[in-house]
Amino acid sequence: YLLFFFFREKQVQVKNPYLDTMEEDILYHFSLSTKTHNLPEMFGDIKFVCVGGSANRMKAFAQFMHNELELPGNPEDIRDICEGTDRYCMFKVGPVLSISHGMGVPSISIMLHELIKLLHHAQCRDVVLFRLGTSGGVGLAPGTVVVTDKAVDYSFQPQFEQVVLGKVITRSTELDEGVASELLQCSSELPNLPAVIGNTMCTHDFYEGQGRLDGALCSFSHEEKLEYLRKAYEAGVRNIEMESTVFAAMCRVCGLKAAVICVTLLNRFDGDQITAPHDVLVEYQQRPQVLVSHFIKKRLGQIV
Amino acid sequence: YLLFFFFREKQVQVKNPYLDTMEEDILYHFSLSTKTHNLPEMFGDIKFVCVGGSANRMKAFAQFMHNELELPGNPEDIRDICEGTDRYCMFKVGPVLSISHGMGVPSISIMLHELIKLLHHAQCRDVVLFRLGTSGGVGLAPGTVVVTDKAVDYSFQPQFEQVVLGKVITRSTELDEGVASELLQCSSELPNLPAVIGNTMCTHDFYEGQGRLDGALCSFSHEEKLEYLRKAYEAGVRNIEMESTVFAAMCRVCGLKAAVICVTLLNRFDGDQITAPHDVLVEYQQRPQVLVSHFIKKRLGQIV
Repeated sequence: YLLFFFFREKQVQVKNPYLDTMEEDILYHFSLSTKTHNLPEMFGDIKFVCVGGSANRMKAFAQFMHNELELPGNPEDIRDICEGTDRYCMFKVGPVLSISHGMGVPSISIMLHELIKLLHHAQCRDVVLFRLGTSGGVGLAPGTVVVTDKAVDYSFQPQFEQVVLGKVITRSTELDEGVASELLQCSSELPNLPAVIGNTMCTHDFYEGQGRLDGALCSFSHEEKLEYLRKAYEAGVRNIEMESTVFAAMCRVCGLKAAVICVTLLNRFDGDQITAPHDVLVEYQQRPQVLVSHFIKKRLGQIV
Repeated sequence: YLLFFFFREKQVQVKNPYLDTMEEDILYHFSLSTKTHNLPEMFGDIKFVCVGGSANRMKAFAQFMHNELELPGNPEDIRDICEGTDRYCMFKVGPVLSISHGMGVPSISIMLHELIKLLHHAQCRDVVLFRLGTSGGVGLAPGTVVVTDKAVDYSFQPQFEQVVLGKVITRSTELDEGVASELLQCSSELPNLPAVIGNTMCTHDFYEGQGRLDGALCSFSHEEKLEYLRKAYEAGVRNIEMESTVFAAMCRVCGLKAAVICVTLLNRFDGDQITAPHDVLVEYQQRPQVLVSHFIKKRLGQIV
């Protein structure tokens, strides 16, 4: 009985009593279904799921992992599993799944519902999820990688507000401390990978919500912007992005270990526009990928 | 003086005093900039902007408009103006701009900030904006096109809550009544285009917020779901999607005439999953395109 309990705990859990009564489950935004696809065969060996906003970047990450894991075949041939739709892209390399989620909480939320159902249908066990992203830094040199301690909302609280049938409920956004400190340890073993653990603020827009002075709408002063950023810094916020709270909240409810790793593209105390040259931005965006690849290779015993 | 006032009113307005003091404005998520691109030359003649979630669909719409407007050249050659990024796609066909915005309020909000700045920098005048989308129907036969009267939130109020520097402000989401009734008139002139004017509810997720029983998380009963949908119907809601409130709010603040035209893919009273065959869904998704094309051709005097 204890052994049974032990194994159950590690399986990916959905929190929906209706799901197992459905004859078919269409994962509409992935263009996959339990009737038309053998999900256990396709995905049963997945141990690491890496998600990020941009489809091009998540494809590049899949090709990078293919090389890092020294898998057979040409990384250029990796196929988009969701090619029947343009909502998300999905690539599988060995035990690693790489998926794009677009920008903002609603977009990643749709993807996470269907991903968690997919992992459940595929009977996956011991899965770790990573969000690899870009962000605005708060008091950090551009290019610094922030491993999220707590994902916080616009009032710096570690919570996510979800509307359910017209009522607002609040969910905790705590992430896995063990995975975060393991990632920080990994960063110290890599060259050119400045990393810190800090809180990540998740907003619902890029301009007014993040205090930018360069949107189509701006009703506050430069000094008011700086005051808000200073308060955020005092609350432990080191970067700002747009998906971390719902990612943390949904993984937590479903018992999935999860981490958020975002590189900062600028220091918001110094400006709002992203002005670094293209090649510098490309190198910055590779840093979370290099860090997570190192973590995965250590877990797989490919680095001792 | 009156003439000056008259012309000013029609120009696209940004509501940000800082913008005209900036030496360069990088529209980061479009991969365009005022320094590297001649925006008045590229976009100055734009009169109609059509936005929608899917990049493939907005490309198909651009090609469709190219044929409808009988423009010279091969519609297959239409180039993505934002090819330097994969965040959004943008296509120009004569006076029509077609742009993808991804899924959810935050994603369309970033696009709208940069679009409104683009139209301002390009000195565009008399622009009408359309959101062409898909949605869940509330008490309508699948395939019905809903032209939005009021965009409402999860409590059926015509408002959008925007966080600005940690404080919540409320904006009105009223749309242009004239454009909506002109669109309804257009629908009556077209075969196979069932359309109604009704309220559109905008939610921040696809599953729990819309009362779906088939997500990874579900904490309510089938009867509670139906009760919420019945209340929505009584409040005049005829469809549910994920972008209309911020689209209406931002267009209104900036003095842009705007309309939301979404086809319903299913009747939510009958179910949650989108089960219609692929070819039926493709035909449904063309209906808002056919309707808006008819509107544009009438405005341009190509249909009397």
